[in-house]
Order: sequence, then structure tokens, then C-alpha cells
Amino acid sequence: YKIALLPGDGIGPEIVPQAVKVLEAVGEKYNREFQFETALIGGAAYDATGHPLPEETLELCRRSDAILLGAVGGPKWDSLEPHLRPERGALLPLRKALGLYANLRPATVKPSLADASTLKEDIVSGLDIMIIRELTGGLYFGQKHREDLPEGGQKAVETLEYSTAEVERVARLGFEMARKRDNRLMSVDKANVLESSRLWREVVEELAKEYPDVELSHMYVDNAAMQLVRNPKQFDVMVTENMFGDILTDLASQLTGSIGMLPSASIGGEVALYEPIHGSAPDIAGQNLANPIATILSAAMMLRVSFGLEQEAQAIEAAVNSVLEQGYRTGDIMQPGMTSLGTVEMTEAI
Amino acid sequence: YKIALLPGDGIGPEIVPQAVKVLEAVGEKYNREFQFETALIGGAAYDATGHPLPEETLELCRRSDAILLGAVGGPKWDSLEPHLRPERGALLPLRKALGLYANLRPATVKPSLADASTLKEDIVSGLDIMIIRELTGGLYFGQKHREDLPEGGQKAVETLEYSTAEVERVARLGFEMARKRDNRLMSVDKANVLESSRLWREVVEELAKEYPDVELSHMYVDNAAMQLVRNPKQFDVMVTENMFGDILTDLASQLTGSIGMLPSASIGGEVALYEPIHGSAPDIAGQNLANPIATILSAAMMLRVSFGLEQEAQAIEAAVNSVLEQGYRTGDIMQPGMTSLGTVEMTEAI
Ligand SMILES: CC(C)[C@H](C(=O)O)[C@@H](O)C(=O)O
Ligand SMILES: CC(C)[C@H](C(=O)O)[C@@H](O)C(=O)O
Repeated sequence: YKIALLPGDGIGPEIVPQAVKVLEAVGEKYNREFQFETALIGGAAYDATGHPLPEETLELCRRSDAILLGAVGGPKWDSLEPHLRPERGALLPLRKALGLYANLRPATVKPSLADASTLKEDIVSGLDIMIIRELTGGLYFGQKHREDLPEGGQKAVETLEYSTAEVERVARLGFEMARKRDNRLMSVDKANVLESSRLWREVVEELAKEYPDVELSHMYVDNAAMQLVRNPKQFDVMVTENMFGDILTDLASQLTGSIGMLPSASIGGEVALYEPIHGSAPDIAGQNLANPIATILSAAMMLRVSFGLEQEAQAIEAAVNSVLEQGYRTGDIMQPGMTSLGTVEMTEAI
Repeated sequence: YKIALLPGDGIGPEIVPQAVKVLEAVGEKYNREFQFETALIGGAAYDATGHPLPEETLELCRRSDAILLGAVGGPKWDSLEPHLRPERGALLPLRKALGLYANLRPATVKPSLADASTLKEDIVSGLDIMIIRELTGGLYFGQKHREDLPEGGQKAVETLEYSTAEVERVARLGFEMARKRDNRLMSVDKANVLESSRLWREVVEELAKEYPDVELSHMYVDNAAMQLVRNPKQFDVMVTENMFGDILTDLASQLTGSIGMLPSASIGGEVALYEPIHGSAPDIAGQNLANPIATILSAAMMLRVSFGLEQEAQAIEAAVNSVLEQGYRTGDIMQPGMTSLGTVEMTEAI
């Protein structure tokens, strides 16, 4: 299995090598061979080549079987022109170029960490939601322009577009995912206001006929934000458009209280991309403080989703759980009475 | 003071009269005269006239000094065409016709109710946020259309527009509000992706020069959703565009755990509109179960914001607090050891 490594910025270059160590250990145990090749992305790529997403990086991705990304961005590149910034200039074009139309974001609470949430323990313990966010459509990739107004000042105009096909392919993933879990799909939209949401809802309803065994419901996005706080355990699989998904996935991960633990996958194209949901955390970079678990669990997701190596994925997840149950913690999830470990030491324990 | 009453649907016709009783009591005590006139809106208006926002209703609003709205909508009208539904056909056109470009939504936690939240008590006790949502621009009022695609299926397209003037007037309210509170303003946008957010941020930055005493910060909307869950007390005043505001105001109110307590004001035009943030709750309508406090506190906001009657507003708020401290509760906020009251009895206690 050929894996492209894109460490990126901040703590990225620290955490990606930890996941590599874990993949090598699991490969040795189960007799699998992983080949790694590294490329630049984000601010690091801009500094070296003048562009945050060099053509070589895209090419490496295209000829790999899966991609593991660390994180991109940092204050150093915040004043560049938008199209050269790590987020706008690398992340979004990478998603589009590789056709990664669905972002899978689990929000799960491990029993040993239920106390880490700002929500009451009974509200979040055992939480297990899977949010599927459409990732290559909507406002993110609409037309954008500015114009000067005759009366002074300016006007910014951008478009939000969705087609039947775009909705259908991501909704289908939602139904399929629900089948693998608790058979319940919540489609989130704003059909009382948006035309794109009405199309979204119609397409989802139509597709539901192919999945009579899946219980489909609809919820407006404002209510979904409330319900995630009021009673998050009511949800199994959620599917929504790009911008709503951006907001709701971050909200859902914060419910767990430990975003340093959460992996993600972006799929739909020929090669899938795996990354921790947290950012590049420049403030703690280079100090052996970063929590490598989200990246390690992203590698487990890769084994499961891209390579079908279920046993190997479970081996990694079991190792993470066991280390947590033994009381080992990185600084971000440290609790009284536990043992604090650095990035490297946590990886070794796992 | 001439007040237009728009009870609307569901529990609306039950709670609006409670606020009227409280206004009459406060008027008697402080020697103020309130005149009330009632008009139809929402499903009730549709049933009686064939349209959810009759012209007479708009006219009554225009010749009043303030408007008190109950709630609109219900399953009975959900299958009407969008432009006839209570929300799309009445609420949005009413906001636009009256020029109500700013929605003020406080999210506060009363000491006696800190336990009602799903968040841990120390995270929310003493919470006091004011969110200002732009209410007449953005995706809500953009162009919308559908087209058939040559390859089959359809495409929905809508526009998100903001002008300098639209951003400036609502941002100005944000700065002014911050001055009356803790002098901190958080502007929420998605400037790393949206052109309208970049315009938003530029206009807010420019305006900040007139308010050197207000501490201005910016936050992306996905991060704002996370931070509201992680540490909501970091915020004082927040200001954001229409769709983000729809999501974040509902999220923020759910943090308090008692949305039956939260008022709102929509301002900017010649006459302002006050309403509880909760919906029409058709399931409990007509049973003397609804919590009238959000509507009563909306009336207090009206006295303060539209009529400048600060003492009278405080008298209402003090009465609500005192009744809560004496242990009286409606069903939605009932706790062990407290005394449960119906809609009418709660109002009488206040
Ligand atoms: C950095 C930003 C452009 C990006 C997004 O909005 O998609 C991020 O928030 C994410 O969710 O991956
Ligand atoms: C009913 C709906 C159109 C409305 C909105 O989205 O503005 C509601 O959610 C609100 O916040 O007042």
C-alpha cells in the first residue's frame, strides 16, 4: 500500500511520523507492507516553492493508494493573498482536484474520557455520531465577485449551487453508512429558506425509496445545532451540505471535549485523504506536546476504509483504548491522577 | 404607547395575553398607558384570509409604536406552497417590509436555572451573551432559481449578497451594544472562504476606528460554534450575518437549557418587533402548559429598547427573578422540590 504523507505545518510534521510508526508496527504484526512518500503542503510548501499546493504534491497524491495529512496553516501565512494561504490555496483545491466530495467525521466519546466534555457526563457518555459533510460543492466553490456601488461602498456576491447528482452521491453514502450502523439517517438542511435545500431534500427523499430499511428524518440546521447540545445521543448518521457541515462537524467534535482524539476521512475520488480534525496548533509545535491520537486513529480509518484491513484497524483502535484505560494522557486531555506523556512517548505506549 | 399584538399560532394566542397582563400591571404601577390592537399572522391568518401576512396586519404594524409577536407555524400548514407557509410567507416578508435588519438575542442564565443546561454548571452559570444577527440580507433574500440540466437532474442556484452599507449598520449596532456592556465585540464570519465575509471583515475593521474603546476580535463561524460549547463565557457581544446568526443564536440559547425564558428584539426600522425565541409548540397548545416568561421578558425588552422605560423594564425582570427564586416553575423548567405552575398561574405570580 502506497501512502502519501503530507505533514504540513505546525504540529503536522510531529504527528504524522507517529502515525507512520504505528502503521509500521501494525504492518509488521499482520504482515502488510506500507510504502511512504512525503510531499510538501500548506505554509511549508509556500515557503519552499511559492505555492501552498505544488504540482508534485498533487501528482504524488494521484499515484498513491491513500493520503495522510497532518495540518496546514499558521499566523506566518495569514497575511498572504487568499489564494496563496494554506487553507484556501491548498486544502480546498486539493479536495476539488481529487474529487473528495464527502468528509466523514465521527464524534465519539471514549468511556475513559467522558469527563473531558463541557457537557454533563450523562449527556455525552457513549456518544457515537457519524457526520457526513458534502465537501466539493456549495458556497465554497461558488462564483464570487465584488462590485463598486454607484451610491458608494461595494457589494459582494457569491453563489450557492447544488445539482441533483452532487446531492445524490453524498446522500447515498449517508444511507450506506446508516446501514452499517444503527440504520438511522438525519439529513440536515434549511429547506424553509433555501432553494438548494429544497432540491437537497427532494433528492434525499427520492433516494430513500432505495433504502426502505433506513429510517430517514430531516432537520433544519438551526434546530440541529440546538439538538446537538440538548441531546446529541439522538443522532446516528447525519448528512449535510458543505457550509452547514463545516459548522456542525466542529460543534459535534467539541461535544466530546477532546478534539485531539478525532480522525476524519475525505472520500469519493480515486484516492482518499485522512487527517486529524484539529488544526496545526503553532503555539505548541516542536515541543513534543501534541496529541498524536487523532492522526493515529486517522491511519486506522485509512486501513478500514481505503484498504479494507478491518482487523488491522481494530488493532490500532484497541491499542489506543488500552493506553487510555491504563491512565496515559497527553497534556490536552490530562486529568488528575493520570500519567502525562509527550507526543513520542504516547505513540510508543500505543 | 400603541402596541400591535400578533399572537400567531400554537401557544402564541396563550402567551401573548400573559405579556399584556404584565404590561397592564406595570402601566398601572408607573402610570403609563398602553393601547393594544391585535392582528392575524401565520397559519391563523392563512386560515382566515388565504395569506399568512395580510395587508391589514402590515398596516397595523406600521402605525404602532412596537410589535409583540407570539409564534407562527405548525404541521397544519407545512404542506402549503413555500410562499404561503407561516415562516416563509409571513416572518421573512415582515422583517423585510419593516426594515428589521438586526435581531438581538440575549443568551443569559439566571442563577436559579444554571442547573437546567446540558452543560456543566460552572461552564454556563452567569452566562450573559448578546448576539446580534443581521436579519434582512444574505442567502435569505438572495435570488433563487432552479434549472434542468442537459445530463438529467436539476441545479439549484441562489446568491449570497452583502453591501458595505448593510454590514456597516448592523456592525455599528454591535459596537454600540458593546459600549453598553463589557466593551468587547466578536465579529463572526467565514473570511477564509467567503467573499461576503471578506467584505464583512473589512467594513467591521474600518468601523472599529470610530470605536477605539471597544475591543474587537474576529472568529470563523466553525470555531465560534466550537467556542460556544467549549467556553461560552468568553463572549460579550457577537455580531454576524443572517444564516450564521440563525445557527449560532439557536445554539447559544440551547446552552442556557431554558429557551422558554429567552426574549428577542428585531430592530432597525421605524417600529421594532419583540418575540420569544421559542416556537409555536403545537403539541402543548391550549393546555395552559406554555411558559409565558420569554414573552413577558420580550415585553420588558420592548419597554427598554422602544420606549426607553428602563425602570418599568427592570420591574418586570425583577418580578420574574423573584418568582423563580421563590421556586415557581412551568413544566419545561420544572425541577425536583419546586412548585409547578400553569401559564396563567405563572403570570399571576409574576
Ligand atoms: C480551513 C477551512 C477552509 C476548512 C473548511 O472550512 O472547510 C476547515 O474549517 C475544515 O473544516 O476543514
Ligand atoms: C422560521 C425560519 C425562517 C426562521 C429563520 O431562519 O430566520 C427562524 O429559524 C428564526 O430564526 O427566526
